[in-house]
Amino acid sequence: MSKGLRARQDMEKERETLQAWKERVGQELDRVVAFWMEHSHDQEHGGFFTCLGREGRVYDDLKYVWLQGRQVWMYCRLYRTFQRFHHSQLLNAAKGEFLLRYARLAPPGKKCAFVLTRDGRPVKVQRTIFSECFYTMAMNELWRATGEVRYQTEAVEMMDQIVHWVREDASGLGRPQLQGAPTAEPMAVPMMLLNLVEQLGEADEELAGKYTELGDWCAQRILQHVQRDGQAVLENVSEDGKELSGCLGRQQNPGHALEAGWFLLRHCIRKGDPELRAHVVDKFLLLPFRSGWDPDHGGLFYFQDADDFCPTQLEWAMKLWWPHSEAMIAFLMGYSESGDPVLLRLFYQVAEYTFRQFRDPEYGEWFGYLSREGKVALSIKGGPFKGCFHVPRCL
Amino acid sequence: MSKGLRARQDMEKERETLQAWKERVGQELDRVVAFWMEHSHDQEHGGFFTCLGREGRVYDDLKYVWLQGRQVWMYCRLYRTFQRFHHSQLLNAAKGEFLLRYARLAPPGKKCAFVLTRDGRPVKVQRTIFSECFYTMAMNELWRATGEVRYQTEAVEMMDQIVHWVREDASGLGRPQLQGAPTAEPMAVPMMLLNLVEQLGEADEELAGKYTELGDWCAQRILQHVQRDGQAVLENVSEDGKELSGCLGRQQNPGHALEAGWFLLRHCIRKGDPELRAHVVDKFLLLPFRSGWDPDHGGLFYFQDADDFCPTQLEWAMKLWWPHSEAMIAFLMGYSESGDPVLLRLFYQVAEYTFRQFRDPEYGEWFGYLSREGKVALSIKGGPFKGCFHVPRCL
Repeated sequence: MSKGLRARQDMEKERETLQAWKERVGQELDRVVAFWMEHSHDQEHGGFFTCLGREGRVYDDLKYVWLQGRQVWMYCRLYRTFQRFHHSQLLNAAKGEFLLRYARLAPPGKKCAFVLTRDGRPVKVQRTIFSECFYTMAMNELWRATGEVRYQTEAVEMMDQIVHWVREDASGLGRPQLQGAPTAEPMAVPMMLLNLVEQLGEADEELAGKYTELGDWCAQRILQHVQRDGQAVLENVSEDGKELSGCLGRQQNPGHALEAGWFLLRHCIRKGDPELRAHVVDKFLLLPFRSGWDPDHGGLFYFQDADDFCPTQLEWAMKLWWPHSEAMIAFLMGYSESGDPVLLRLFYQVAEYTFRQFRDPEYGEWFGYLSREGKVALSIKGGPFKGCFHVPRCL
Repeated sequence: MSKGLRARQDMEKERETLQAWKERVGQELDRVVAFWMEHSHDQEHGGFFTCLGREGRVYDDLKYVWLQGRQVWMYCRLYRTFQRFHHSQLLNAAKGEFLLRYARLAPPGKKCAFVLTRDGRPVKVQRTIFSECFYTMAMNELWRATGEVRYQTEAVEMMDQIVHWVREDASGLGRPQLQGAPTAEPMAVPMMLLNLVEQLGEADEELAGKYTELGDWCAQRILQHVQRDGQAVLENVSEDGKELSGCLGRQQNPGHALEAGWFLLRHCIRKGDPELRAHVVDKFLLLPFRSGWDPDHGGLFYFQDADDFCPTQLEWAMKLWWPHSEAMIAFLMGYSESGDPVLLRLFYQVAEYTFRQFRDPEYGEWFGYLSREGKVALSIKGGPFKGCFHVPRCL
């Protein structure tokens, strides 16, 4: 067989494999969306139940604002970008005013609750920006899906507030100033902001322009988390980009690094910066995979210590669904941008593990929490931190 | 063989088995105390390192106030009640002024930090009473061990503050009042207070008298956690003793119930109340053991749901050291008070599992965190929540 023919055959086979995955992923997306549509809508009070057992049964009616915002975002995104999801049932569920009416603690103040009762009364507040970020994502997508300007006004005003908290004055978040507390930057903060920059700037030249400098700042801050001569991505560094002492400083979260990786890849695409892209692939895709993939049982560890001490998080060796969905996105996007077959192989490796271990063929949706060995440790399909978001976003 | 002879032989055998356990436990206590004495003393700044790896290596130098207070308490207690630990090395390590000097955030205010830097600057504060409770225990034991009145003054003043927070006005703890937050009572609060009542009242008629009503109140509040017609001990109930909705209301923690059990047994001893003692044995010893012991792999689950939903805590099925040390205390104390051989059997069952699975014959001290199947999940000997306390207290 000639070399050229062999190469063409290989390419053809590759195309077929990718096409088969595309179909598999599409079917899985339908099943997953059906699960949430069937079980999570609160017809009485609006909003979504997210504490769902294996079969979809509601085991708690608390409403976590992160997950309310994420589900609204996801529904609008599906409605807006897929012909087969462009139906009023999805849009109406997203439009329910629950989030708009109850998420904010004391309007006109911007601080949002972390969790609400079924009828919208605040139960807990976090002293971070994340409820507000998911609120912003939801409002921006609601505007895109419906054209109603009031949603966009909410999104932009909240974004301004978040940027103020992060870059100017965090005192509004309510964290006490303690003499011994390190000025640590969790990677989540610039990641989340970079995600919002992309969300708000999509096909919106004015906002994209407004947030250009912010996007660059976020990317630069995320890149500061690459430490130790490029040998480790650390979750927490000082604000001026130095390693912090102790467990906090050595903490690694491979799934989070991979998620940051694809946020940065999107940033590179917008910027047209192939040099940065190669750096991102190296440091945020290949490095976390090499250190974070369990050689014995497969799957990505949840937490690791850069000096190989035992992490203090009890769940450090568990396999969680979201690092795997983020890794699937990161490797496929990396391959699509660079054409590097190594990244495609890694996509297959992660996707096969993920579909085999997390997917529930019986009741739909994915399990979220496996033991180190890959056994289902929690049978829930949704909970305080798992809702209708990572799985369908990935699919 | 006559019936009488048989019974005498059985009793003799029982006595020998108990004596063998007593010796085994005594030797283990020596090894455990040696581990902490060798690895945990900070000669430079005072106080104790508690983030210790398997071999005793310090992997973080943060100082958690719960664990600082507990170790001071433990050292003084050992010094005071065991001839072989009555040496100045233990007492001097306990007397180091670290806790007295740095635990309180802003004296004369009573609020204590949750965690301090190595040199005593506050890193985090909890909006609960527990740092303050362990501070009180430590100060009271320091007074007993040294006779220095300044320690007792600290203990009594802090105790008054804690009681004020719990029974009169919690606003000093800094928790926000939220409209949807349930007025839940975690069982830990009356448990901890009951423990302090015993601590401060030991051989001290004046304080014992002062806290008699408080002790009765604590016992009554703990007993309110027995719910569902006596079929379950729930971790959180409303202040007037009703079951709460959702996961919070259904949460069970068998080890905690067993710990409450032996606190209550001590209360019954002080009161001379055998009827209450029988109730406590039934509800706080036998019931949590029956529901909480893993029939497949042995050991006590960490969390359970009273309706058998899957708990949302990722570590729910893990086996932690402290529920087992508490269970050993509870069953042996229950047997010693009631003479019921069922309780002695359960002591043996738990003690054998515990010594087999948690003990580290190689480097000393116990592992703290095992997988459901009993494999060591975290190799650390100390961390943010494990210090020199539960293991030696039990032994």
